[in-house]
Amino acid sequence: MTTGPITVDGRRLWESLMELAEIGAYSDARTGLRGVNRLALTDADAEGRRLVIGWLREAGMSVRIDPMGNIIARREGADATAAPVVTGSHLDSVATAGAFDGCLGVLGGLEVVRTLNERRISTRRPVEVVVFTEEEGVRFGTDMLGSAVAAGRIPLQDAHDLIDRDGCTVGGELRRTGFAGEGAACFSPPHAYVECHIEQGPVLAHAGLTVGVVTGVQGISWQEITIHGRAAHAGTTPTELRADAGIAAARIVLHLREMVDSGRYGALRATVGHLAVHPDLTNIVPARAELTVDLRNPDDEQMARAEADLAGYLAELEGQPGITLSTRRMARTSYVPFDAGIQKAIAAAADDHGLAHLSLLSGAGHDAQEMAAICPTAMIFVRGEYDGISHNPREYSTPEACARGIDVLATTLVRLADE
Amino acid sequence: MTTGPITVDGRRLWESLMELAEIGAYSDARTGLRGVNRLALTDADAEGRRLVIGWLREAGMSVRIDPMGNIIARREGADATAAPVVTGSHLDSVATAGAFDGCLGVLGGLEVVRTLNERRISTRRPVEVVVFTEEEGVRFGTDMLGSAVAAGRIPLQDAHDLIDRDGCTVGGELRRTGFAGEGAACFSPPHAYVECHIEQGPVLAHAGLTVGVVTGVQGISWQEITIHGRAAHAGTTPTELRADAGIAAARIVLHLREMVDSGRYGALRATVGHLAVHPDLTNIVPARAELTVDLRNPDDEQMARAEADLAGYLAELEGQPGITLSTRRMARTSYVPFDAGIQKAIAAAADDHGLAHLSLLSGAGHDAQEMAAICPTAMIFVRGEYDGISHNPREYSTPEACARGIDVLATTLVRLADE
Repeated sequence: MTTGPITVDGRRLWESLMELAEIGAYSDARTGLRGVNRLALTDADAEGRRLVIGWLREAGMSVRIDPMGNIIARREGADATAAPVVTGSHLDSVATAGAFDGCLGVLGGLEVVRTLNERRISTRRPVEVVVFTEEEGVRFGTDMLGSAVAAGRIPLQDAHDLIDRDGCTVGGELRRTGFAGEGAACFSPPHAYVECHIEQGPVLAHAGLTVGVVTGVQGISWQEITIHGRAAHAGTTPTELRADAGIAAARIVLHLREMVDSGRYGALRATVGHLAVHPDLTNIVPARAELTVDLRNPDDEQMARAEADLAGYLAELEGQPGITLSTRRMARTSYVPFDAGIQKAIAAAADDHGLAHLSLLSGAGHDAQEMAAICPTAMIFVRGEYDGISHNPREYSTPEACARGIDVLATTLVRLADE
Repeated sequence: MTTGPITVDGRRLWESLMELAEIGAYSDARTGLRGVNRLALTDADAEGRRLVIGWLREAGMSVRIDPMGNIIARREGADATAAPVVTGSHLDSVATAGAFDGCLGVLGGLEVVRTLNERRISTRRPVEVVVFTEEEGVRFGTDMLGSAVAAGRIPLQDAHDLIDRDGCTVGGELRRTGFAGEGAACFSPPHAYVECHIEQGPVLAHAGLTVGVVTGVQGISWQEITIHGRAAHAGTTPTELRADAGIAAARIVLHLREMVDSGRYGALRATVGHLAVHPDLTNIVPARAELTVDLRNPDDEQMARAEADLAGYLAELEGQPGITLSTRRMARTSYVPFDAGIQKAIAAAADDHGLAHLSLLSGAGHDAQEMAAICPTAMIFVRGEYDGISHNPREYSTPEACARGIDVLATTLVRLADE
């Protein structure tokens, strides 16, 4: 017989979310809104990790840190030899974040364990809650870094050697913050992985629903483009003698937008989030420009054609006198479909909680897409307000929506843990 | 009878230029070239000023500092009551400068005085060498600042209140560096002002000439544009729901280039030298973008039409959902024609030195355009190598070219000082 629906303590969950959000908190200069800044392996991130580790231990879990700094908290099951059911997410944030991205998945896992303890519910399989390192990829340039190492896609040493804009390495920052752990870098395959995360998009809100079952994660392509031109005096250098790196950068930004608008690449999304020129002075033609290109596509073939289009356009620009370009691949993931069985288990749990739901694709990258390579995996999405705005202090999901999402997580995990 | 041509000590001039270039010197990371960074009223600028003041005093000149930090060094003439003949330029630089921009005019004036002393040449009128404060406008956003105050165009208090990106004021930095002087902020009208400067353009080099007579300075329009959009997640936010400040900035950059290429605004030059987006992260749609627009035009009417075109384009952009714009005027100067008599005196001096020359317009702004408002003024241009590249470590004029330019300056100044 299947376990009935398990309802968590939504208020306790909310209080944990709000307490964690105080770490790395800042007040947005323009809007006055309160935001969160906990870039991976900064002092703020380390402080947040220590707070959560304390809570996990108070919940009676054993906690270990692996060599990538991933935090693995375990609640034993009746059968210690059985592969665990794993949930989790990340605590690191972008520089202008809200309180929910990643944190809901980690503190939701904690809340599930707290609830199981109160109800004295034991499971056959162990239940593990994992905090993955540098999911955002903002500081060291590669997202889902901790889960990619845990799943064996990125070698540990390569990850440790990544460098931020100030020349700090992942390995060095792991040691500095006290999160350079021990043991195997790769996880032994769990029985299943289920992650609850805010949608970070408008679909659930527009459908008037609270939770969604995630069918997969669209492909992501990140690259950094550096353009070298020639510095020159703004007042005296004839236009025809200029090699303006800033103009070349602007052409790339607009070409990407044209690629999207053309519809030639299906559901392609393109973003230039980082753009800088040097020497960056009013009366000097830019000698150098640097930008990042973030492409997303739910279709690998269309993504490949979009990347080829961009590469061709860059080659054209390089044909212009005085302009040279170089590109650096930052991240590249294919479309990841989630496990049908786990999706069904999530949908059944949502039904049992009386929650209408829909199935949707994830537009953002998540640790779950890495775990999908080593075990049956799927995700639960929780509705966000304001069109699901995220990576912004306005990011917000209601206490009710967070609680319902974690209800579904709890019921799904317990049922999978009894398989 | 007119004084014959006066030849200066080119080697002594060159040694002074090279010694001054050691202050604020840096080695360019990419090219390995040696550059100069002496932004106005930084410690490096102050050190350069003190070195030059020492040299001016050694040359027997009396030195005073005015409330704007302008340095006025005076060599008395036979008639102490006669209005002085003034030369000069600036010692502050852009962040990626060479050794000649401004420095040639100041050290050239010093070399003229050193030569007059050696030859025991006395003049009827006093000869003054002036170092103007913050000519580049890079640090405090308004170029020709010191000369604009001296000529009465900008009130002293307004200049003192200008703020750099770190929140430092001109007044505060003048006090901190010890250059908050006394006396009148405005110069009493000199008999004439003659400035020698590197061309910072390719005209003389392409013509195979060493010196040129400057007929005037084209108009300059500087403004800063700030674009407010809306931050959003790069992966999940549908393109139609975005308000991307970076794309709006790119459109402005390319519209300016189209304005130039169209030929509709005559000899218009347009440069976006400063461009930044916020929060400047790979996977976040820019919420804000900031850029500077530098327009130059030798025709005031065409400049006005170009500014109107840009303003109209900004209004169009503001019509797009979620995008708002604000502009800040940084600097605005009209076309400044130089005095025909002074141009003739310079041309005659060049002839007497056996130097072929041509007349040309200045593409860059110079302190001379401010002095032109209070006395007969003109400039001597000295050829630059490599297409006259400037505001760059590659900026270079030969010792020969520098010496010949200052020969012409010396002969011109002495003749004007005997009028």
